[in-house]
This record gives sequence, structure tokens and C-alpha cells, in this order.
Amino acid sequence: MIAFQGEPGAYSEAAALAFFGAHTETLPCDTFETVFQAVDKGQAERGMIPIENSLAGSIHRNYDLLLRYQIPITGEVHHRIRHCLLALPGVEVADLRRVMSHPQALAQCEQYLSQLNEVEIVSGQDTAGSARIVSERGLRDAAAIASKHASEVYGMQVLAEGIEDDPANFTRFLSLGGEPPKSGRESKTSIVFALKNQPGALSAALAPFANRGIDLTKIESRPLIGKPWEYLFYLDLVRAPGEEGASDALAELKALTTEFRILGTYPQNLA
Amino acid sequence: MIAFQGEPGAYSEAAALAFFGAHTETLPCDTFETVFQAVDKGQAERGMIPIENSLAGSIHRNYDLLLRYQIPITGEVHHRIRHCLLALPGVEVADLRRVMSHPQALAQCEQYLSQLNEVEIVSGQDTAGSARIVSERGLRDAAAIASKHASEVYGMQVLAEGIEDDPANFTRFLSLGGEPPKSGRESKTSIVFALKNQPGALSAALAPFANRGIDLTKIESRPLIGKPWEYLFYLDLVRAPGEEGASDALAELKALTTEFRILGTYPQNLA
Repeated sequence: MIAFQGEPGAYSEAAALAFFGAHTETLPCDTFETVFQAVDKGQAERGMIPIENSLAGSIHRNYDLLLRYQIPITGEVHHRIRHCLLALPGVEVADLRRVMSHPQALAQCEQYLSQLNEVEIVSGQDTAGSARIVSERGLRDAAAIASKHASEVYGMQVLAEGIEDDPANFTRFLSLGGEPPKSGRESKTSIVFALKNQPGALSAALAPFANRGIDLTKIESRPLIGKPWEYLFYLDLVRAPGEEGASDALAELKALTTEFRILGTYPQNLA
Repeated sequence: MIAFQGEPGAYSEAAALAFFGAHTETLPCDTFETVFQAVDKGQAERGMIPIENSLAGSIHRNYDLLLRYQIPITGEVHHRIRHCLLALPGVEVADLRRVMSHPQALAQCEQYLSQLNEVEIVSGQDTAGSARIVSERGLRDAAAIASKHASEVYGMQVLAEGIEDDPANFTRFLSLGGEPPKSGRESKTSIVFALKNQPGALSAALAPFANRGIDLTKIESRPLIGKPWEYLFYLDLVRAPGEEGASDALAELKALTTEFRILGTYPQNLA
């Protein structure tokens, strides 16, 4: 059982099915925190959460939850976000008076939506939840923006596919909990750390990796509000099988930090 | 004349007035690109654009435009985003049947909005534009989520203030164009670069700063979609008055990059 945030048909569910297989059982959760709780309490063996989107950037909320809960990252998958306009069978674009979706999906389809005449744009909780509402209520003047997967879940037709303004729209999802699969390939380690409040601190923190030529695939500073000069850092590094330098680098870094957490080590997914 | 994206009353306008003075003339623009064009063509002396938000992260769209246009960053300001529920005078919360705003503002007020009963959440182009619509159309069953500044622009009352779920909601805005003010204080330099496609490239790129103990206040990697292993990097570094090491470090870094742009050097704003 894989927990995800959203309703059946959500992008996170589609990512979970892509990663764990099409016949995996899934557990819809109201919030990201409920996903962590479901894994923590054993209601689900794993969770699947989005961590960064190529257009919108990192999902800080989920980094916060990774810090709060002691659940390891055990995998990653890059999933293309391809928004579709979904309506009941027989409904045409000209019939539409309202389009519903999650605010971020609406924002990502701004150009497409601006071409629709006299259509009200309505913000919903969720992409898949918007599809469910249109379907359940039998609305024939409304459409939802959601995944193609949602059209199958709710018996809807796809009026238009790939309506996002920018096709380079990918989300990186993480698998939470369980054990990472054994793999002879390169693995990725994700860490979060905070640094002492002094000039040059970040440069010093990166030196252990710079000196060893260790490959970093993500680094991001996040200001801690109300604490000018204090930051959280997200860092992903790649380690070759059997390679030891990364452990030494992490130990050196840890000595410089005020907070340090290894979030998980898991097989790298390129795609 | 300061160009900003949005309608009169937008957060960007409020930031421009905070930075340039309350009597500054402003030029509302439809899109971020129109702001760049207005400065480029001399219709405005400066522009004011958001570049990162403490909750939502970096605004990649504006980094893309900074790369495309040759307009230097000449200043920065950190502006607290304090969302307000605005309605016509005399309207009460119990009268409301719809709340309109920009999708991101709606998402940031999710908890507050979920407490309102039987209120439809409607997505608009803009926070200030939503306030204008409620005001112009005399809607007495609707409210907008926008800045306090917008309530003054459109003659509306503030039904609730600070309704964002997370009060640590700050946006960093940049001033574009003109000359940076002379200052004896520390300055910040913002750069964007891309690296050759090889393992360890980022570590090597950071070594010039690590070796000199140069203070970095922002670093962020952004995957280039469809090009696994290729990244754009955003980096802000701090330079003391008269300090030379930063120039040497930048020259060393430049030699390693496939793309390299200094976006501007400007006085650091802490707040």
C-alpha cells in the first residue's frame, strides 16, 4: 500500500503506479503530513511525495516534513506533468462555462485558459478532486484540469492534452519508507543542514565536496526567515558503488553545521 | 517611473513604493516580460520584479528574463507578504459567497479559506486585479485576497489581515535598470551559469569561493529539462568594499562554465 497526497487520479498516484507498478494498491491522503503519518504508523508500507518541480522549484513543505519525521527516502522518480482538460463524455469546449483545478495547475495553463471565452476559472483543492466533482455532479458546462490518469479514474474524456504553457514540466517524486532496493549502480544521498552564523560558512561547507570532486546534483539555500544570515541547505550528492570519499566529506561537513540530517540514500533515477 | 507586473495595488507596486519612496510614479505592466521591455525601451527608468519567495522559492521565469534581457540588477528589497481579505465597505464575512485572488495567494491562505462556509474560491489573474473587479462591479457577496495597499487603491475595507497560513512569507524583489546607488557597505553580486556536462563539475565550480572563504547568500541548481546532468546555477555572493578576491573567484569560475552572466552588483539589503 502506497500513501499519496490527493484524491484517486492525482499526479502523485500516477507517479506511484509508474514507480511501483500498475497494480500497486494506493492510499489517498488529505495532506502531505497525513502521508508521512500513514507510513509512520504502518498504515502504508511506503509514501510517494513530490519534492521539486522543474517550473515551480522545490516543495519546501515536504522538506520540512522530511526533517520532522524520521522516515528515510528510499527512491526517486521523475514524472512528466502533462495537464489535460477533462469533461464528461459528449461535452465540447464550446459548452464550457467553468474550468476547475488546483491553483498551481491553473497557473501552469494560463495561456491555454486565456484563449477560452467567457469561461470562469475556479480554484479547487486538487486536480483529481476537481475532476471528481465535475464527474460526480454530472456538470456538463464544466471541465477540470487534471492528469490523463484522472480521466480513467472518473470516466471522463480528454478534450485537450498537454495544455501546460511550458512543456518542460517535470516533477521529481520521492519514495518514503521501507528499504532502498539493492543496486550496483550509483546512488544518491540527500541531506539537509544549517550552518553557523558567519561569513564564508557556505563556502567552507562545500569545500569537502569540492576538494574531492564529488558530484552534486542539487544544492539549494533557503533563507530562515527572521534570521538574516541563517539558512537551511538542501544537497543531493552522487556516490559510486563502494566509494568512500562521500562518507568522509559528509563527516567533515557535519562538524561545521548546527543541524545536519541524512534524509536517505537510494538508487539514482535519471530519466 | 517604475514598471511592475500587475495592476495598481499589486505587491510589486507596494515593494516599489517601499524601495523608491511613497511618491514614486509607477507603470503597471501585464506580464513580467513587459516590465523588462518597458525598462529596455526607456518607458520606465527602472523595473521592480519578484525573484524569490520564502515559501514558494525562486521565480524561475524572472531568472529566464534576466538572462534574455541585458538589464542589470541595481538593488534588492525584502518585502513581507501579508494577505488581506478585502471587501466593499459594509460587507461582512457572513455575506461572502465567493473569494477571488491569484492562484498562489489562494494556495497560501488555504487554512483560512477552508474555515469559510459555502464560499466559492475563484482564481483570478492577479491579487490587485481581483480587488479591482470586486470594487468596480460593486460585488457585495464577494471578497478579494490582496495587499493592504490594494484596499487603499480601490477604496475597500480590510475584513481580515494576515490571513496567510504561514507568516514567514517574504518576497525578495529586485530593482532593474539604472545605476546601483554608491554605497560604502557590502554589496551583492548575482550570477547565473551553466557547467560542462561532467561529474564533479559543481564542486569544482564552487572551489574558487570555498578556497577564498567568500560569503555566498544564495545558491540554487536548476535542472535543464531534457538534458540530464545539465544545470543552470543561480549564485549570489557578498563582497566587502574594495575587496578583490571575488573578482578573481568569478574569473576562475567563468573558465569552467558553458554559460556565464553577471546579472548585477548592488547594495545588500538585509532586513
